[in-house]
Amino acid sequence: MTTRRELANAVRALAMDAVQAANSGHPGMPMGMADIAEVLWNDFLHFNPANPKWPNRDRFVLSNGHGSMLQYALLHLTGFDLPMSELKRFRQLHSKTAGHPEASETPGVETTTGPLGQGLANAVGMALAEKVLAAHFNRPGHTVVDHHTYVFLGDGCLMEGISHEVASLAGTWGLGKLVAVYDDNGISIDGEVHGWFTDDTPGRFEAYGWNVIRHVDGHDAEAVKAAIAQATAQSAKPTLICCKTIIGFGSPNKQGKEESHGAALGKDEVAAAREQLGWKYPPFEIPAEIYAGWDHKAKGAAAEQAWKDAFAAYAKAHPELAAEFERRLRGELPADWAEKSQAYVARLQAEGPEVASRKASQMTLDAFGPLLPELIGGSADLAGSNLTKWKGSKDAGNGDSAGGQGNYVYYGVREFGMSAIANGLALHGGFIPYDATFLVFSDYARNAVRMSALIPAQAIHVYTHDSIGLGEDGPTHQPVEHLASLRYIPNNHVWRPCDAVESAASWKAAIERKGLPSCLVFSRQNLKHQQRTAEQVADIARGGYVLSDPADARFQAILIATGSEVELAMEAMRTLAQQGMAVRVVSMPCTEVFDAQPQAYREAVLPGWCRARVAVEAATADFWRKYVGLDGEVVGMSSFGASAPAPQLFEHFGITVSHVVDAVKSTIK
Amino acid sequence: MTTRRELANAVRALAMDAVQAANSGHPGMPMGMADIAEVLWNDFLHFNPANPKWPNRDRFVLSNGHGSMLQYALLHLTGFDLPMSELKRFRQLHSKTAGHPEASETPGVETTTGPLGQGLANAVGMALAEKVLAAHFNRPGHTVVDHHTYVFLGDGCLMEGISHEVASLAGTWGLGKLVAVYDDNGISIDGEVHGWFTDDTPGRFEAYGWNVIRHVDGHDAEAVKAAIAQATAQSAKPTLICCKTIIGFGSPNKQGKEESHGAALGKDEVAAAREQLGWKYPPFEIPAEIYAGWDHKAKGAAAEQAWKDAFAAYAKAHPELAAEFERRLRGELPADWAEKSQAYVARLQAEGPEVASRKASQMTLDAFGPLLPELIGGSADLAGSNLTKWKGSKDAGNGDSAGGQGNYVYYGVREFGMSAIANGLALHGGFIPYDATFLVFSDYARNAVRMSALIPAQAIHVYTHDSIGLGEDGPTHQPVEHLASLRYIPNNHVWRPCDAVESAASWKAAIERKGLPSCLVFSRQNLKHQQRTAEQVADIARGGYVLSDPADARFQAILIATGSEVELAMEAMRTLAQQGMAVRVVSMPCTEVFDAQPQAYREAVLPGWCRARVAVEAATADFWRKYVGLDGEVVGMSSFGASAPAPQLFEHFGITVSHVVDAVKSTIK
Repeated sequence: MTTRRELANAVRALAMDAVQAANSGHPGMPMGMADIAEVLWNDFLHFNPANPKWPNRDRFVLSNGHGSMLQYALLHLTGFDLPMSELKRFRQLHSKTAGHPEASETPGVETTTGPLGQGLANAVGMALAEKVLAAHFNRPGHTVVDHHTYVFLGDGCLMEGISHEVASLAGTWGLGKLVAVYDDNGISIDGEVHGWFTDDTPGRFEAYGWNVIRHVDGHDAEAVKAAIAQATAQSAKPTLICCKTIIGFGSPNKQGKEESHGAALGKDEVAAAREQLGWKYPPFEIPAEIYAGWDHKAKGAAAEQAWKDAFAAYAKAHPELAAEFERRLRGELPADWAEKSQAYVARLQAEGPEVASRKASQMTLDAFGPLLPELIGGSADLAGSNLTKWKGSKDAGNGDSAGGQGNYVYYGVREFGMSAIANGLALHGGFIPYDATFLVFSDYARNAVRMSALIPAQAIHVYTHDSIGLGEDGPTHQPVEHLASLRYIPNNHVWRPCDAVESAASWKAAIERKGLPSCLVFSRQNLKHQQRTAEQVADIARGGYVLSDPADARFQAILIATGSEVELAMEAMRTLAQQGMAVRVVSMPCTEVFDAQPQAYREAVLPGWCRARVAVEAATADFWRKYVGLDGEVVGMSSFGASAPAPQLFEHFGITVSHVVDAVKSTIK
Repeated sequence: MTTRRELANAVRALAMDAVQAANSGHPGMPMGMADIAEVLWNDFLHFNPANPKWPNRDRFVLSNGHGSMLQYALLHLTGFDLPMSELKRFRQLHSKTAGHPEASETPGVETTTGPLGQGLANAVGMALAEKVLAAHFNRPGHTVVDHHTYVFLGDGCLMEGISHEVASLAGTWGLGKLVAVYDDNGISIDGEVHGWFTDDTPGRFEAYGWNVIRHVDGHDAEAVKAAIAQATAQSAKPTLICCKTIIGFGSPNKQGKEESHGAALGKDEVAAAREQLGWKYPPFEIPAEIYAGWDHKAKGAAAEQAWKDAFAAYAKAHPELAAEFERRLRGELPADWAEKSQAYVARLQAEGPEVASRKASQMTLDAFGPLLPELIGGSADLAGSNLTKWKGSKDAGNGDSAGGQGNYVYYGVREFGMSAIANGLALHGGFIPYDATFLVFSDYARNAVRMSALIPAQAIHVYTHDSIGLGEDGPTHQPVEHLASLRYIPNNHVWRPCDAVESAASWKAAIERKGLPSCLVFSRQNLKHQQRTAEQVADIARGGYVLSDPADARFQAILIATGSEVELAMEAMRTLAQQGMAVRVVSMPCTEVFDAQPQAYREAVLPGWCRARVAVEAATADFWRKYVGLDGEVVGMSSFGASAPAPQLFEHFGITVSHVVDAVKSTIK
């Protein structure tokens, strides 16, 4: 009979060996948390290696993602499709074993981690998803949604500010099925943490309303087992289990020291660790009895089958609910979505409301919300400014979720936590989350927005107050570089619509972008309605399109604009027309989508022969050089904004019809 | 005799009236905190309205910066150069009373606030500055550095993650002269906070090692006075004073509600509030006896004079120290700086070390550090990777500062807090702070970096591991869009040097950029040394310069590159030369500085006749369109990176000599 320690040592050996083979990586954490992981995965975690996407599996998140070899070893040993050949190619190009866990690359990895603290936030989002989904779908005698979310985290995660934001929310929401295991090894990269991390972490989490289990010996399997059992025996509060561990456990000369954290131990030390651990097998060799001790294939298949049987009974009793559950978990939109959403956009084009695009966004939510129970919205304490609440919004974090109708989250002033929680909601399945703040404060959430695109996760980030047009709040609140910076995040789509029609179309595009994120950028101030043919309405979805062409002459110049500056471009075009100059106006609500159109379409909109091009956007001017080149002009911003009423600011910064007219004239040779 | 309440009501009236006049702003917080502010400013705060820059003044920071009218009212009433005419122009263009407090606009405003939580972080930086400066300059019998730092903050600041990061550090460092006053009014923008903010905040701060004073009635002047007295009577721990207040105090129908937070109360409600407060004076009128009760001019002048006398005695006893103190507080570099720093750069050019630019950065710190006692460095737990410690580095946060030599801060894994603390260190005076993390994690600090540029503050942000060149850690750790995004922050300078010489020159530029920030971006991997004439070495400071021209032919194309891609461009140039094509190579370590050069210089480097231009940078390609236009090419990144050894990644993503060669050929018509 193999001992628990021997099972854990298999993880240690694989971690040491893979890092050694790559000569790169982090052996310390896997060796330190191996005993804890062994208990969690063998005694508690519900999962089926043959189906990593089984909806009711427990979620496991490695927030201290540098310890990726821990996760890869666990996935391999328990029977996921991660063969030893992949472990041998740790950190190599095109392997399934990247330096940090990547959800898109490796079966069984729930989210991409590495940027510290965000795994915890994702886990909070997953636990919230479970709670809200359970409230919505479970019925007496039929508990089809019922799983835990486990997250491992280290000192680094706990130092990061985002840990405060999301732990506070988890406590407020009473996420009783969230269990966080703190790898309290006293070491971070700069050495022993007492010089820079002296928090009473248990006291801190008690202040958030968590259930805290202190002083657990992370190398004593029975103690760990008792702690997890205590955590899962209650469901009123999230639990933090504080495990004292030794980083690099088993490495005779490097354990307990920073040296074991982020580099290969070295050949001799690996040998010495083998000796100390009593691990007699060569690199990447696991004896059959150890595999047998870890094998989760039969147990996992049985667990999923039991759930499937229960779900079949549920489907019999509640066929419509069951079908809806399956639809949502598949991430499919409702059957009537395409028709109804298109009809709404067409209706707006006909009616032509002239409102702020943030208001148009809310109108769209009122139209789309009833179609999409998977929408779960929220704002970082700016609901009334972002206009993210719609008529059907009900508090999801607290009270209303008990009634199963919760679809709105009060995130408080926590932009980073909010955005990373949204990633977790999206990753869990069953939801399309949207969140919101002022565009300038996308800065606070910046890396979570990047992670939406990298993981990827279909989080819709709503940003209102999109330019100096917000007025008196001044430069601290006025975005300038944010549009360009968000557009430059690979795989991200940024929409800045020019009127209510484009606003609705941008929501439609974001909702239909399955598994991938979007940023929707809306104005504070009212925007004029633009005339469009049906074809033009359809072309909004192409990211950029000809909004206006001269009636009876070939155009001499092209004006390209987005958002509130489209009406300004249209006005400049009319002024120029009066002066005998023929100008095309292109509305470009989403540059990334436009760039992805076929060359023929792009050439039709921005023909190469026309170098007289002027872009207009109340944001970083230089971004637009990719469209106007060295011969064109940009009317935009190159400095911070200022505090004044919006019309004065547009005048002050020269984002005016007359400037645009002058710019066009200067480009026409 | 005027009562304390009457004095406070002057603040309330000015806040109501100014917001009403602007029909924009936040009356609730000033009305809620007026009683607290009255006690602090009249009974405790040391300042001289006639000299807002008196070095030993207490620092006052309004972290809940939306309550700007509180600060403007206080500055006006106590006698700063902020006349009533400016209060009447609240939130108007070119006024000194912007929507949120701006340090660059208003005398007496220590830092620009509004982005929540960062004011607290700035205050922590100021308190750290005081502690380190005191340890360095004070001598027995001569206490020339001795002041408190007070910060007001609200629920929003406390929800933000950055409050966790910096409160934790303040506790660890034992910043006993830091006093934070928490405006516990139970209201945030979405309403009563109990739905999203249920922390036991006092318990949380005790977990950070703070002195916490609970349950203070923020409208009871005696209670507030006793609390501040208790805070200032000890100096072992930072203090949090938890004041229960009523937002919008005095507004009969809106107090205690969100309605008073962020909009003018309305004419009728302002009148009703006047009635309730017993404030009989018309808008913007303050009776003489109220002015008299606030006037701090004589008291402030006396306080500064007493300090000047003490400083004169200090100067007599320690003339060199006194001169050095004055130099540092003036922000002047040492007399030998220019010569020695230039000599160092020249020496590097002669010696040509081939090291990673992060290593070159450390070598530079070893050379410049001994010249600059005002340098105070640090890293977010990556000292050994960022190479930010130099031979003279000593722990500033804890032990060594007692000896007066502290100049290095262990920030832990707290990028946002670190960067905002650096802003506070810079704003205090006496220091040039630098901080560091991986370039990708500049995301976590993003808004603090923006604030460095907006405030502005001379913080030097060091970012290493600057591209896919970091290798195996993978896409979560590989920056792509970050260079462009940082360059687009107005007023920011971003340097990405190509070898040890440019690395030293970039440090020199950042140190000499008085009062303004820079980002220094360094590689993980080794970089080749480039040959330069003395003139070329001097031209590095111009941001971009001709590194290589064909010896005997007019160039047909221009290659523009930065950082690690300069050697690749040089190699491509040589390959092309062998094939008979003449190419200029421009090294462009800082695009913002290059853009600010005279047109003639820019034209000399990038002459308009040459449209065959290729930019090479392992980062967002589109950024470079501003230099290469529509006719040129960019060899760069348009996706996330991957996990693999660096050489394979450059090959995989096509950032290779052969691609650059092909790109140049394609642009030569």
